[in-house]
Amino acid sequence: MVTNAPPDRLALGLDLGASHMAAALVDGAGTLQGWRQRPVDRALGPQAILGQATELLRNILAGFPERARSVVGVGLGLPGLVDRARNCLLFAPNLAWRDFPVGEWIAAALGLPVRSDNDVRLATLAEWLFGAGRGCSDLLGVWIGTGVGGGMVIGGRLFRGPGDSAGEIGHLTVAEDGPPCSCGSRGCLEAAVAGPALAAGGRALLLQAATGGFASPLGDLCGGDPGRATARLLAIAAARGDRGAREVLARAGRYLGIALAGYCNICNPERIVIGGGVAGAGEYLLEPARREIALRAMPVPRQMVRIVPSQLGGSAVVVGAGALVLGEY
Amino acid sequence: MVTNAPPDRLALGLDLGASHMAAALVDGAGTLQGWRQRPVDRALGPQAILGQATELLRNILAGFPERARSVVGVGLGLPGLVDRARNCLLFAPNLAWRDFPVGEWIAAALGLPVRSDNDVRLATLAEWLFGAGRGCSDLLGVWIGTGVGGGMVIGGRLFRGPGDSAGEIGHLTVAEDGPPCSCGSRGCLEAAVAGPALAAGGRALLLQAATGGFASPLGDLCGGDPGRATARLLAIAAARGDRGAREVLARAGRYLGIALAGYCNICNPERIVIGGGVAGAGEYLLEPARREIALRAMPVPRQMVRIVPSQLGGSAVVVGAGALVLGEY
Repeated sequence: MVTNAPPDRLALGLDLGASHMAAALVDGAGTLQGWRQRPVDRALGPQAILGQATELLRNILAGFPERARSVVGVGLGLPGLVDRARNCLLFAPNLAWRDFPVGEWIAAALGLPVRSDNDVRLATLAEWLFGAGRGCSDLLGVWIGTGVGGGMVIGGRLFRGPGDSAGEIGHLTVAEDGPPCSCGSRGCLEAAVAGPALAAGGRALLLQAATGGFASPLGDLCGGDPGRATARLLAIAAARGDRGAREVLARAGRYLGIALAGYCNICNPERIVIGGGVAGAGEYLLEPARREIALRAMPVPRQMVRIVPSQLGGSAVVVGAGALVLGEY
Repeated sequence: MVTNAPPDRLALGLDLGASHMAAALVDGAGTLQGWRQRPVDRALGPQAILGQATELLRNILAGFPERARSVVGVGLGLPGLVDRARNCLLFAPNLAWRDFPVGEWIAAALGLPVRSDNDVRLATLAEWLFGAGRGCSDLLGVWIGTGVGGGMVIGGRLFRGPGDSAGEIGHLTVAEDGPPCSCGSRGCLEAAVAGPALAAGGRALLLQAATGGFASPLGDLCGGDPGRATARLLAIAAARGDRGAREVLARAGRYLGIALAGYCNICNPERIVIGGGVAGAGEYLLEPARREIALRAMPVPRQMVRIVPSQLGGSAVVVGAGALVLGEY
């Protein structure tokens, strides 16, 4: 239970992403009911997309007419920088929205109070309360997809930082002269391990193989077109024994380990939860990361920390968004 | 004031270092009285050194006979890994002590309760309460000397981590294939910016100059002997216009900036206080660090953070040790 409030209280949780949205009713035990999802076409712009989100939420409520009075609010997980006081999405690079009053829209449309936060932070909250981070006082959540985001629990509390921007482990430098990052820096963890970096690694691998005339599982999966390489196909190829694909993932995993070892030395967490699409590569990524942590973390944090995969997967943001409404975080 | 306790309460604060100890009476406003210090000869071993510490503390008390009854305890700043519950120094690399019950010794000798913590953490506590970190809720203290230590204030509280080992920014990787570090890893901040790294940089500079037959301010300061190069002499040479010395410091400052930018992105601090002997190089170190932070930190933490020199300098550990006894940290 996330609150001492009556156990019949419910919240709507919405995960609004750049390519996809999902929502459900969430209760104080983190249980979901009425899950619905749909694709997002970012070309439609904020008004139309929020219209679709409102419809999705209304449809969920309509499925539980007897419980509508128990729904105390809507939690929003937003893909970018959030002004929580105003429930505004200040900047969402993948949606190309700037300073849009998402919360006001949803609140007006549904007549319910709204709370919002960054999606990755809410996914971390969910894992902490109900998933792979349960029982920890100090936790890092790392979400690896198109970018790399992080959420922090410090001393038994969700930690946001005085400027509400803590947790950006994706922009820790892991290679001082590494490739440019979307943030303007270079050699960030994100530039080494996020989806586009792995796709580029797969592409380079296939171009190299083409020059040498080699066949490979990754090549088969991409139908011979290097441009079709993705992190997901790399992981499948690795599982089919593709040594080149395993090496690309291992190199990324090594950089992930450098970043996580740094976090361990600074914050001494009990657990690090790894989620997001790229985390589907599993041990091909995590095993080299663990090896690097063994080399680079100090004895106390190294012995304490466990690196574990997300348990809530694609529902983590929805669960966290609901928990934000039901509890005080 | 660090507590709501009567303002006439006092504590003894002891800074026990590997080459030097210092102590004083500390009040709730962080004011020092009866400051005494002496060198430490680590070859004497723990019993003899703690005998000297006890004598130092007794002499301070003897100077204030009318206030002896106001002294409520002794705070110890210890140079290594501390078991705070047992007031044991678990491991002090520079003193070569292991699992020594320092607190028991001092408590028995003086008949006063004892509290202890890592020296760098107490220096950070002191800067937060009374020095360059006053008024912050989120602060990093970085102490650069023979090694690099860090102390953290997170969300308005001194943060130690669940394994009591948080704050080891000195062992954040800043150069993935950099030089070996005393911790067993490589490319740590400590291996790039601590005293021995700067001395090695100065040595390399002088050997190079000797080959080329160049004179330099650093060469004059070292009397032509590269083996005498130190961080302190590098800083003096830089101030006298030595371009080589400035470059060595700038390179170290760049790595300091990479580490601090990482900390900013993860923890979003309001202030970073830089202290320790090497920090005497001042802007020759800090200006390149600030430049790197401008490149590598995300907009919100970058605009929020200020990088400032320590205000309490060599008295920070004594002040923090006293505060530990007078307050709840």
